[in-house]
Amino acid sequence: MAYFRDNIERMAGYTPGFQPKGTDVVKLNTNENPYPASPTVLKAIGAITAEQLRRYPDPTGESFRKTAADVLGVRPENILCTNGGDDLLTICVRACCDAGRPLAYAQPTYSLYPVLAAIQDCPVIEIDRNTPDMLGQLAKADAALTIVCNPNAPTCDRLPVDALANLASKLSGVLLVDEAYVDFAEEDALWLTLHFDNVLLLRSMSKGYSLAGMRFGFGIGVVELIDGLMKVQDSYPVDAIALQAATAAIRDQAYFKENIAKIKAERDRLTEALRALGLGVPDSQTNFVLAQYPNAKAVFKALTEAAIFVRYFKLPHLEDKLRITVGTPEQNDKLLAALKTILAV
Amino acid sequence: MAYFRDNIERMAGYTPGFQPKGTDVVKLNTNENPYPASPTVLKAIGAITAEQLRRYPDPTGESFRKTAADVLGVRPENILCTNGGDDLLTICVRACCDAGRPLAYAQPTYSLYPVLAAIQDCPVIEIDRNTPDMLGQLAKADAALTIVCNPNAPTCDRLPVDALANLASKLSGVLLVDEAYVDFAEEDALWLTLHFDNVLLLRSMSKGYSLAGMRFGFGIGVVELIDGLMKVQDSYPVDAIALQAATAAIRDQAYFKENIAKIKAERDRLTEALRALGLGVPDSQTNFVLAQYPNAKAVFKALTEAAIFVRYFKLPHLEDKLRITVGTPEQNDKLLAALKTILAV
Repeated sequence: MAYFRDNIERMAGYTPGFQPKGTDVVKLNTNENPYPASPTVLKAIGAITAEQLRRYPDPTGESFRKTAADVLGVRPENILCTNGGDDLLTICVRACCDAGRPLAYAQPTYSLYPVLAAIQDCPVIEIDRNTPDMLGQLAKADAALTIVCNPNAPTCDRLPVDALANLASKLSGVLLVDEAYVDFAEEDALWLTLHFDNVLLLRSMSKGYSLAGMRFGFGIGVVELIDGLMKVQDSYPVDAIALQAATAAIRDQAYFKENIAKIKAERDRLTEALRALGLGVPDSQTNFVLAQYPNAKAVFKALTEAAIFVRYFKLPHLEDKLRITVGTPEQNDKLLAALKTILAV
Repeated sequence: MAYFRDNIERMAGYTPGFQPKGTDVVKLNTNENPYPASPTVLKAIGAITAEQLRRYPDPTGESFRKTAADVLGVRPENILCTNGGDDLLTICVRACCDAGRPLAYAQPTYSLYPVLAAIQDCPVIEIDRNTPDMLGQLAKADAALTIVCNPNAPTCDRLPVDALANLASKLSGVLLVDEAYVDFAEEDALWLTLHFDNVLLLRSMSKGYSLAGMRFGFGIGVVELIDGLMKVQDSYPVDAIALQAATAAIRDQAYFKENIAKIKAERDRLTEALRALGLGVPDSQTNFVLAQYPNAKAVFKALTEAAIFVRYFKLPHLEDKLRITVGTPEQNDKLLAALKTILAV
């Protein structure tokens, strides 16, 4: 007997973005927020006691649920705390998909979705995201779980929420809207969770709240969805420190909004500057841009040699593109200067 | 279409032990360590920077792997960091079990195992732990994954490691030895991981290291096992703070050993005192005792009313027993005094 299931033996696993150890690099490869978290977060972490560490944490993360519910205008019962947004993706695939219940999504998108399907050994329905009738095809597929990343990674664009509502109304399964990047977008799909019992939103504290090191995400949906997913989740999904820190972060909306505004402004400047260098850069609704250039791989290598890290995907639709996280003005200037040299503009 | 798979719709989910909010209670119901973590842990947490929070954590937790490997005398590649020990159980069931690949264990044991099998929708082979030939029956079952909790919860007893070696040699699947409580036992099964490519150990920082609030566990096994499980695991399973704190905790072996010695001494005192009150208490190899008393449920209720929390399981073999965590001398004295009154000894 092989020790693992065939589907596990066969698969390669997900490759996370490279995490350089040093701090003297320009790291624009994994969509982290370039600014620190709210000062209230470090205060919350400093206030942790040995007694909190000794005891098991609150199993459902009530302090975060209450605070996030206040901020979002929903009820605490509509919120599910997870160990990063990826944990919610895992839970949904485990709860909804199996050999007879497929997962559907449109490519290109977040490359973890097919990995989770491979682990679960469920059928996958992949629609080409460039097809004009992409949403119609997702509706027709009517999978047990449909995931739409919105805004989408790595393409930066966003479907109108009305179109998602239309999709939700046609699906008999769950529509998971992965809003990991929604903090940087013009619109979110929150109202759908109040009108559809099959819509679940994924939110992340990693990007908008500068807490990628913390692993804290959450789901939003009707109580029946949240309660069902809770059965599949770990008994203590988020630890006491992460809970206290994430609660402090989401409470400080003033800091959050200022942070987001700075990144959006810098994103627009970066977009213009890259266009001026001859790269094809569509408008972005996220904290990164997807820049098209014929020999993107060579540019990626040259940037890496200059200790400037961006992301390159050897995947269909993406081989001529670089995904570049919006950094601080200084980081973006370093990137632009290096590109000027590499492209010899 | 129902939103969830049939097996998920059917199942009830795991019920974690009650977590009273107040600190003015005697909480002996979820096997937490009564003493605080090493002071180096709070220092490590206080040293966390906003830069560490902003960035994704090290995907494999190298700092912990190296330190734990040094302490244990294995290689860092033999160690898998997980979001609590339960995360390792989940990963193993997902990697090894499916409709054609059963999970086997002996009852009574940790009540999460059948829950994980129900989520994975895999067959379960349950052996009666009171059968003299229990290990022979597990060997005969030869499941894809066999879990032996050792020392066992909630029975407190421990199988000799030689017997586990014998079992491992007969299995063609993986033997997962759940050593969540091994820090309080006379012997561990570490050497098995050096001699068997199908033995995986589960360790926890929750009990022996007083970090239940943190969610940090780890697996030990040959590189091929660890690498296979890593494919199934979340991309960033442990956060930056937990990683730094757990590394500090396992590095401070002097503090750890002193802490364990105190609990063992108190466990022996508690065992004797409970026996003197007329309860049936077998020797324990864990940080809790399983105390037999005909009307255990009534005693449980009376203790709860006195704000003394212990654990009662309405399960076969356990309905006449209370699981009592070893507390501080003061907590144990309060428990003993309350029992004296309740039992009117």
